[in-house]
Amino acid sequence: MLREAVHHAAWGSYAYPVGPDTLRLTLRAARGDLKRAAVLYWDRYGSSPVLWAEMHLAAQDELFSYYQAQVQLETKRFAYVFLLEDGRETWFYTEQGFFQDLRPDTHFHYPYISPGDLWEPPQWVQGAVVYQIFPERFANGDPGNDPPGVEEWDLPPGPTSFKGGDLQGIIDRFQHLVDLGVEVLYLTPIFKSPSNHKYDTTDYYAVDPHLGDEAAVRELVGLCHRHGLKIICDAVFNHCGSGFFAFQDVLKRGAQSPYAHWFNIASFPVKTDPPNYETFAHQIGAMPKLRTQEPDVRRYLLDVAVYWLREIGIDGWRLDVANEVDHQFWREFRRVVKGENPQALIVGEVWHEASAWLGGDQFDCVMNYPLQSACYDFFAKGAIRAGSFAGRLAKVQINHTHPVNLAMFNLLGSHDTERFLTSCGGDERKFALAVAFQLTYEGAPMIYYGDEVGMTGLTDPDCRRGMVWDEKRQNRKLLSWYKQLISLRKKHPALRTGSTRTVWADSITNVYGFARFQDREQVVVLLNNSPQEQQLDLAALKWPLGAPKQVRDLLTGEKFRAGQAVLEPYGARILS
Amino acid sequence: MLREAVHHAAWGSYAYPVGPDTLRLTLRAARGDLKRAAVLYWDRYGSSPVLWAEMHLAAQDELFSYYQAQVQLETKRFAYVFLLEDGRETWFYTEQGFFQDLRPDTHFHYPYISPGDLWEPPQWVQGAVVYQIFPERFANGDPGNDPPGVEEWDLPPGPTSFKGGDLQGIIDRFQHLVDLGVEVLYLTPIFKSPSNHKYDTTDYYAVDPHLGDEAAVRELVGLCHRHGLKIICDAVFNHCGSGFFAFQDVLKRGAQSPYAHWFNIASFPVKTDPPNYETFAHQIGAMPKLRTQEPDVRRYLLDVAVYWLREIGIDGWRLDVANEVDHQFWREFRRVVKGENPQALIVGEVWHEASAWLGGDQFDCVMNYPLQSACYDFFAKGAIRAGSFAGRLAKVQINHTHPVNLAMFNLLGSHDTERFLTSCGGDERKFALAVAFQLTYEGAPMIYYGDEVGMTGLTDPDCRRGMVWDEKRQNRKLLSWYKQLISLRKKHPALRTGSTRTVWADSITNVYGFARFQDREQVVVLLNNSPQEQQLDLAALKWPLGAPKQVRDLLTGEKFRAGQAVLEPYGARILS
Repeated sequence: MLREAVHHAAWGSYAYPVGPDTLRLTLRAARGDLKRAAVLYWDRYGSSPVLWAEMHLAAQDELFSYYQAQVQLETKRFAYVFLLEDGRETWFYTEQGFFQDLRPDTHFHYPYISPGDLWEPPQWVQGAVVYQIFPERFANGDPGNDPPGVEEWDLPPGPTSFKGGDLQGIIDRFQHLVDLGVEVLYLTPIFKSPSNHKYDTTDYYAVDPHLGDEAAVRELVGLCHRHGLKIICDAVFNHCGSGFFAFQDVLKRGAQSPYAHWFNIASFPVKTDPPNYETFAHQIGAMPKLRTQEPDVRRYLLDVAVYWLREIGIDGWRLDVANEVDHQFWREFRRVVKGENPQALIVGEVWHEASAWLGGDQFDCVMNYPLQSACYDFFAKGAIRAGSFAGRLAKVQINHTHPVNLAMFNLLGSHDTERFLTSCGGDERKFALAVAFQLTYEGAPMIYYGDEVGMTGLTDPDCRRGMVWDEKRQNRKLLSWYKQLISLRKKHPALRTGSTRTVWADSITNVYGFARFQDREQVVVLLNNSPQEQQLDLAALKWPLGAPKQVRDLLTGEKFRAGQAVLEPYGARILS
Repeated sequence: MLREAVHHAAWGSYAYPVGPDTLRLTLRAARGDLKRAAVLYWDRYGSSPVLWAEMHLAAQDELFSYYQAQVQLETKRFAYVFLLEDGRETWFYTEQGFFQDLRPDTHFHYPYISPGDLWEPPQWVQGAVVYQIFPERFANGDPGNDPPGVEEWDLPPGPTSFKGGDLQGIIDRFQHLVDLGVEVLYLTPIFKSPSNHKYDTTDYYAVDPHLGDEAAVRELVGLCHRHGLKIICDAVFNHCGSGFFAFQDVLKRGAQSPYAHWFNIASFPVKTDPPNYETFAHQIGAMPKLRTQEPDVRRYLLDVAVYWLREIGIDGWRLDVANEVDHQFWREFRRVVKGENPQALIVGEVWHEASAWLGGDQFDCVMNYPLQSACYDFFAKGAIRAGSFAGRLAKVQINHTHPVNLAMFNLLGSHDTERFLTSCGGDERKFALAVAFQLTYEGAPMIYYGDEVGMTGLTDPDCRRGMVWDEKRQNRKLLSWYKQLISLRKKHPALRTGSTRTVWADSITNVYGFARFQDREQVVVLLNNSPQEQQLDLAALKWPLGAPKQVRDLLTGEKFRAGQAVLEPYGARILS
């Protein structure tokens, strides 16, 4: 047995409560190394006998297999060890390492399931369909508030272009979101700012006049809520814009400013080009970094967070550059935000592995860029094959708790990436296949405005083109595909909140398949990421709830006995 | 290369800031597998070239070698990958796995060193000598406050014995602590309670009348502070005593009590024997568990925590049964306690791996029972040999940041264990060797009252005997040994706050050696855990700062050229 590969930790995603007296445990071993894994567990104070649970294979990546089991004890106080067999050796794996027998006082401890530590993201976001809008580019509902020098809507935008999009435009086009089946609306920043993207806030309490006013936000929030949608805004707290009153005061009064400590300034007087203060990214003078460790800076920003929740009724925040703000700030942010509204959502922008923010004390979930990157490599570029794709997904899945995975903003692209259809070289079949994955996989699929009608574009600024509203220029077939998949997702609880397991990952044919399952429902999604037709023996799949005798294709309605299934080139099947 | 063994995480003890722009990184590989490990790092926004640092072997345990390096960037924004060579293969190890070359966008991220995330335990505790007193058994300074039925001091205590020890006794015997060289005094609970151990609190605001009164605590605190000692008390917040007013109210008024939700009660009326409510451990009716997730319970306990800090001036809290209280409670506890006094100490009672509490948001350190257990197995029982001992220490070391390791309460025993001399079968040589380890190793060595004069005793209640004050019955040689080692520790900063590295671990001779080093000072401690004399070639040791030409024995003053050192049976040498 490859003992060096075996891993467990009694916290984080490897040991977490899924109920008041039930724990989910994960064990890692070298890929394919084990014949059997079980967990032996008992009450820490000896009030139970030694109980056991078999562990099932939950996921696999390049190097590891991951096993899971749930264990339950009325007393909520767990001592446990793992028993691992590879056919030749048997080991007890404990907090103290490996032993040939069950040794006293070597076990792992999950000391007590405290109700105070039970947490999950708001249920409304788990599995919900999210739609991201960049307001300056979605629709121009009120030409009266356009900034000067607005460019023609359909011309490719430059970095500083204005197109005139606004909140009234979103209100006017709201039916599009309803028809599509969107459940959560995420707006990039709407507060006063000189730029088109508005990530350089001038005033956190004012709606940008070119986007509208507070009344328009209230109307949009009301519209969302009347249609059962939630709406979240973008909190840019890592930095402000150079027009922010506090920074302006420091520009004027230098070291004498009462706001001088709000920023990291190397020397006075403050110079903006090149900046002699810390900024977002590298020397972006228009975005001075805020010192969020200062109590008065915290107070100010937390008041902002509460204001829009309490006074305007938004349902949560997406946190910009969340990984460069201190964890202590986010802990306080969570306390304050959840104190105001326990159902408010907190989504962090973290492009890399985000476990450090997802332990229940900071964010509910993040923008799932690791999944985006896996999709980019697999569907768009063909740079990895089905086996690697499964491994990349497994890593994301294992790093987080199940409820967090259900809330992750699963995106194919955003305002910060090339459009996914463009990454696919314009190949609609590849794109449609990726969309089928996105809209059936675990998480909250986030659609970047316009993807659903086939918009293309290179990275920023080209990915921020004006939304295509002319139906003749829209890809209506693609739009139907989105609608069909979203409608399926809503009909089948397993697709929203079910567990997820890879059931097929063949790097030769490049077919990838996974199952979603919950209660008695199981749905298997098969994706043929190849230009050839592929056949697959449905009986060879590991259906999590057992192979069904008869299978229904949820896309076509077709029913057939489980046998060979044919997958069109770049075709998908969704079977139940 | 055994890739399955390689591990890094960009948070916790594997990646943490040691200064405003400097990060310490740890990499794990299979034991002895690597010829070379380096870290390549650069600014995340590309403002630096690719820099690199060689990693040094920091520790080894049974299965793994651990490498460390420090990396520095003025911009504080780190991208990094590891380059690993085993003599046959070379791999770049990244957040995305292993690659043959440096691949874009696969690196680990430490996004930004936020000043708000820089933390360490109070400097006063790092390396300090701690002394634990069980007040009912240390000294009877005021027979006037003795409870009825006090037993003779020197008779072995039973579970419910009272001996009459009190705060006045500690005040009267304070010179003993001063002479010994104690720097931190830790008292087990002193609040009103019917038991001798007082872990069943009746009144968190009252000193137990048999121990004294608030004036006595104030006097003791003043005495400590005048002598440069810190003093911490025991916070029993997991549960209260059944005499606590809130529980009494529930006993009286049942479900109608406004305190009914403070406890987990299965049904009304409340019954105490057997209890129909959750308790500490298993059905200990006298200790009802508190529901610390309730805002009013939190408020009450946090007010208690602040009261003793603010009004009485204690320097911190040791948290009883800390692992069964929710993390959210402890996060709030830390905010409140550090808000009151940023230099206050928070020590958790966690007997097992405690990383989940030591991330900077909860405790400063814990009672180091994993180290205690390693000492028990190695020094007392001879159940493990030097190589395993080194591995057990390595695990503790690697799981925590360096400042946390310096603050860990390194104990050989406590009021909850057999006395260590008894565990040694009364063999003073073994015990003295363990003490030499305890008082030179990294951490805050915690001496359990009486160990220093050779007290023995089986586990609770026998380990809680009355302190031996009769000099004829004290082991004065042992006491001198403690004093000599503590005095050495205070003279040599490397022994207090230096880094620590194993330099010798020979399971044949059973000699274990480690170095403490800081700035230009290095001290090597050699421990011969065998009944035979052992010889050791000092030139064969890996002195962290290079082998010195001449070596001084800090215990004897003897100087000699680095050559063969002779170690007496169970002998220690402390060399510089």
